[in-house]
Amino acid sequence: MKPLKSFASDNTSGAHPNVIAALAAANTGSAQAYGVDPITEEAAAVLRKHFGENAQSWFVLLGTAANVLGLKAITQSHHGIICNTTAHIHCDECGAPERITGSKLLLVPSHNGKVSPEDCQAVLSMREAVHHSYPKVLSITQTTECGTVYTIPELQAISAFCRANDLYLHMDGARLSNAAAQLGVSLKAITTDVGVDVLSFGGTKNGLMFGEAVIFLNPDLGRDFAYIRKQHMQLGSKMRFVAAQFLTYMENDLWKANALAANKATALLAKELAPLSHVRIVYPPEGNSIFARLHKDVIERLNKDFYFYTLETTDAPGFPQNWHLIRLMTSFNTTEAEVMEFANAIKACA
Amino acid sequence: MKPLKSFASDNTSGAHPNVIAALAAANTGSAQAYGVDPITEEAAAVLRKHFGENAQSWFVLLGTAANVLGLKAITQSHHGIICNTTAHIHCDECGAPERITGSKLLLVPSHNGKVSPEDCQAVLSMREAVHHSYPKVLSITQTTECGTVYTIPELQAISAFCRANDLYLHMDGARLSNAAAQLGVSLKAITTDVGVDVLSFGGTKNGLMFGEAVIFLNPDLGRDFAYIRKQHMQLGSKMRFVAAQFLTYMENDLWKANALAANKATALLAKELAPLSHVRIVYPPEGNSIFARLHKDVIERLNKDFYFYTLETTDAPGFPQNWHLIRLMTSFNTTEAEVMEFANAIKACA
Amino acid sequence: MKPLKSFASDNTSGAHPNVIAALAAANTGSAQAYGVDPITEEAAAVLRKHFGENAQSWFVLLGTAANVLGLKAITQSHHGIICNTTAHIHCDECGAPERITGSKLLLVPSHNGKVSPEDCQAVLSMREAVHHSYPKVLSITQTTECGTVYTIPELQAISAFCRANDLYLHMDGARLSNAAAQLGVSLKAITTDVGVDVLSFGGTKNGLMFGEAVIFLNPDLGRDFAYIRKQHMQLGSKMRFVAAQFLTYMENDLWKANALAANKATALLAKELAPLSHVRIVYPPEGNSIFARLHKDVIERLNKDFYFYTLETTDAPGFPQNWHLIRLMTSFNTTEAEVMEFANAIKACA
Amino acid sequence: MKPLKSFASDNTSGAHPNVIAALAAANTGSAQAYGVDPITEEAAAVLRKHFGENAQSWFVLLGTAANVLGLKAITQSHHGIICNTTAHIHCDECGAPERITGSKLLLVPSHNGKVSPEDCQAVLSMREAVHHSYPKVLSITQTTECGTVYTIPELQAISAFCRANDLYLHMDGARLSNAAAQLGVSLKAITTDVGVDVLSFGGTKNGLMFGEAVIFLNPDLGRDFAYIRKQHMQLGSKMRFVAAQFLTYMENDLWKANALAANKATALLAKELAPLSHVRIVYPPEGNSIFARLHKDVIERLNKDFYFYTLETTDAPGFPQNWHLIRLMTSFNTTEAEVMEFANAIKACA
Repeated sequence: MKPLKSFASDNTSGAHPNVIAALAAANTGSAQAYGVDPITEEAAAVLRKHFGENAQSWFVLLGTAANVLGLKAITQSHHGIICNTTAHIHCDECGAPERITGSKLLLVPSHNGKVSPEDCQAVLSMREAVHHSYPKVLSITQTTECGTVYTIPELQAISAFCRANDLYLHMDGARLSNAAAQLGVSLKAITTDVGVDVLSFGGTKNGLMFGEAVIFLNPDLGRDFAYIRKQHMQLGSKMRFVAAQFLTYMENDLWKANALAANKATALLAKELAPLSHVRIVYPPEGNSIFARLHKDVIERLNKDFYFYTLETTDAPGFPQNWHLIRLMTSFNTTEAEVMEFANAIKACA
Repeated sequence: MKPLKSFASDNTSGAHPNVIAALAAANTGSAQAYGVDPITEEAAAVLRKHFGENAQSWFVLLGTAANVLGLKAITQSHHGIICNTTAHIHCDECGAPERITGSKLLLVPSHNGKVSPEDCQAVLSMREAVHHSYPKVLSITQTTECGTVYTIPELQAISAFCRANDLYLHMDGARLSNAAAQLGVSLKAITTDVGVDVLSFGGTKNGLMFGEAVIFLNPDLGRDFAYIRKQHMQLGSKMRFVAAQFLTYMENDLWKANALAANKATALLAKELAPLSHVRIVYPPEGNSIFARLHKDVIERLNKDFYFYTLETTDAPGFPQNWHLIRLMTSFNTTEAEVMEFANAIKACA
Repeated sequence: MKPLKSFASDNTSGAHPNVIAALAAANTGSAQAYGVDPITEEAAAVLRKHFGENAQSWFVLLGTAANVLGLKAITQSHHGIICNTTAHIHCDECGAPERITGSKLLLVPSHNGKVSPEDCQAVLSMREAVHHSYPKVLSITQTTECGTVYTIPELQAISAFCRANDLYLHMDGARLSNAAAQLGVSLKAITTDVGVDVLSFGGTKNGLMFGEAVIFLNPDLGRDFAYIRKQHMQLGSKMRFVAAQFLTYMENDLWKANALAANKATALLAKELAPLSHVRIVYPPEGNSIFARLHKDVIERLNKDFYFYTLETTDAPGFPQNWHLIRLMTSFNTTEAEVMEFANAIKACA
Repeated sequence: MKPLKSFASDNTSGAHPNVIAALAAANTGSAQAYGVDPITEEAAAVLRKHFGENAQSWFVLLGTAANVLGLKAITQSHHGIICNTTAHIHCDECGAPERITGSKLLLVPSHNGKVSPEDCQAVLSMREAVHHSYPKVLSITQTTECGTVYTIPELQAISAFCRANDLYLHMDGARLSNAAAQLGVSLKAITTDVGVDVLSFGGTKNGLMFGEAVIFLNPDLGRDFAYIRKQHMQLGSKMRFVAAQFLTYMENDLWKANALAANKATALLAKELAPLSHVRIVYPPEGNSIFARLHKDVIERLNKDFYFYTLETTDAPGFPQNWHLIRLMTSFNTTEAEVMEFANAIKACA
């Protein structure tokens, strides 16, 4: 039995109470199935308020689908999708992007989870011959997989690079809310306004029960998405129950409140861990996760009471031997008490 | 705005109140994500009670996925899948089966929604040469798409044909509960016991909010399904919320109560319509749907207050001109009063 | 051992002597690989002379690839491809079109191998909902799979229907030469001039050793074909040897001479068979094949000395019992003597 | 116009004269199409002599198809294929492996073109969760893409690693003949005898006009290959003309004579270049190619008369600035005079 005190993922939490309430409230009367109901319409309208009047939103059921189908909409199978080595689409989707789009992922280095236009530039030499996939999309993740956040100038530079080089800009925004909350800006400021073409806007990791949105900020690109979603098994019959969650999520900025809560818990934990000599944080913890190295014995001791992931058990340059890499993640409902209990447990391992 | 009184589909209903309660109850504490939580384990165990000790169950999010991924698990792309012309996998899934399995659908005639072994036999001549897909699966639908129900002897004959001819037997059981309820038998009696290899066991059309199960009754065939589900975008992170619905569904036989209610409403409606000379029922209504032909003016009049689908606007042999084909479908929560209101409205069109 | 005297297919012949000579002649010096050599350029130029200045030609290695990749270039996976029940893409390509394009084939009836716009019109109702593949292409075969030839007015009507209905017109021209020869018109007259968008232009069945051309008459549609061909395994390294065959094929109208020879042999055979009461020809033999029904005992007797295909062993309405359906096919190198020997053998079975 | 004196690739050569003769000789009489002719049977028998009695050979038309379809036969889409960063399947096939198998390529470092079991071991940790493709195949290239040759002990070690770890061993043998010739061993000694499961046996790069063989040394794995080949567009109708080339290729060891000639030309060139201070060879030239770095001005001067590829224009550690990486490749018909002319031209650039 896994320990109950989980810092493993924002996915191990349940749903926010408002979400449960919204599901119950949506459960009245008949509604046309397959996403042509009034709640879906209303949710799409609310999303336009957040992402701009041209934003075209489509609900799907889970994050892998949001990423993969968003990419499917903007690629042909002979295209290449540039991403870095930490990208969720590369590391954690069991080859779904390749399988479903037919496209090749073209890897560039990760700089604390971020991509650099310079690295991407080098990939473009593949365009010289048909023996290589044609790079057509750059996919970035915000909040990154290392728990860092792209700044607006960084996003602008990447977007400018894409414009200049016939590349679509795709954003895996499974944790977009955490980034916006961290930067203190609107969702639009770090998507539409910086030139993102297609966005996966996450809900499940931030308090929804199930459901993500694929949002085409460049609406031409979403032309065929109704068909793509259906053929790729993401058009449930009772879609109003996804829409209802998103309505609640956007109203009164629940997305922001949840993200701020998760980020705050991470910030507190980071503050507690920073001074400890037996813990070394490896990336700036700007969202709701901390990556750190600790001695494996410390990790083993902590795992008796807390559940979290060890990502690497190999030694890394610049670290003592047997210091493994762990990830600590907080959620919308992580309490200050839980953080302090965990922090104290770590301190006790000194 | 579509009329609120819907006889369009069992999909237009919401969820049974117990399902909402189950979702709320499951929303406590952390749980490991991605379907390795205790509720999922418990639900799988309950399904083994209903389908036999070897039944291997996997939850997915919607019906097209249940069908397509069950078929994917038992086919290679050069295989052919025999089904009849009314099959949901042929008519209503936007080519998802071909797209995802790579296999070809091999069509046989529909006999009130059923397939006959004789028709399938003829297809097997395709095996003579590699220029043709190799028939490998026979897929049937129970309750059929015409609202009829295969009897146990019919299923046995089909299964025997499959055994004798190197064919897997796949069952689209989106409305399996309605069939079992109608026949007054267990779910196992019309699946495991008659030799079905892989089953889509429907929940959403019978009172769940979202969720279906792919059940391998021949467990060897499910060996790789954990990967297939993940790669094909059906492994949500908070899968406990699908499992929780299925737990409630199977406990106290909610599946049966819901199906009986829907069937009963259809039976009542059929009884009321049968004597009417301006309505002609075209298939024996053995589940929760009625297919009937009426004059288009009658349909138009009814559509002012009721929402249902007109399937064919062409004339059919043996019917008067301009009698179009409609489908009327009842749900777990269709009331007797609703049925009678609709029946009276039809009678008033005489 | 199969009998040597084959009327089985135009594929059982070898290559025309000029083709062998062309291959030997092309085998001098180095040439850039992968289709960027001078011979390929020259062959493309010659094809423009035959198909019009906008014709964009790409060589591939075999007929299935020509069809499938031509279709791939003009479809997305959620599209449907209308064709009739006799189409090679439906009957004889082992599901390659579905597998590679991801699209669904939408079947219409065959009228002596031809499609009618009326039948296609009915298919367009599928466009009402995303649950159905969106019909986007009409694929026809010229010379048809029944050995008949579309007339120019028939082609014009089909093309007009496509223009009016957002459908691309694809032509499987594996035996296009036989049709042009039969009609006494240029290749352009029955392709470019009638509005075909994409053409498979066959070589192998008409005297080449290997090689077909995918020709985009609507050149916008071929934009990405260099990549599609490469990724789908049809870009050989020594492509000059396909191009060299096509050069020879087009020069001095070898395509026409070969087709005329094959057609003439069929016409002679048809003339001999027409009066026989123990043979019944079922389609007008307008190309290089005859479909006929004969008593199975006659077929068995003939098979002792001649090799040809029996297509159906079931009885057909309007024919005596046990008259099976056979196909007789002549080739560019079928001699008058061979035809007469075969005709006499049939007559001897009276 | 590219210079005629090509050291660009063994693909820029034409066919060996014996191959032309074999094609002409095969062009007599009819033969059953689609690979069921006597020449094909004979060629398969001859290949069994070279690769062992269990070797199951299938002809395809080009190298990408040989690799991709061999891999397709031994993978499911959720599998991963381990290969190194120089692999042809990764670098030069436009994403065809991902597109057609649906599998993900899992990259390990290149050690002069070779893989090490240690690097592969690390990849196996992906098997811990369904979020990652399941590593199922290790694909190596012999002769490697760096012009080096795996020794028999190296192959044995790799094979033992595969056996111990549930991995199939796939070999891209586009230049297998060069390796066998170099090592002075039979083809069997470096394939069947060391435990290769599936082999791409190249012909086109070593003097054939077109054609490769997929050889299943583990014959169980080839069970469905007839269908895989057909559905994936590699079953040409006149397959006897591929088989005829392979017959000639294997008889009198033309494969070996051609490979030795190419290797000898490379060895001579390497011997001439080795002493030059303005040329630095970067990998041991064990097959028919040399990778070297030269100053870009030297390359530019040479390119006036000779055609070859510059692979990298970036600086490399340990080399002077502006020394670019080139590849020089010899072929079965590269003459000593051609080599010396080129060598002298390089010397003249000192």
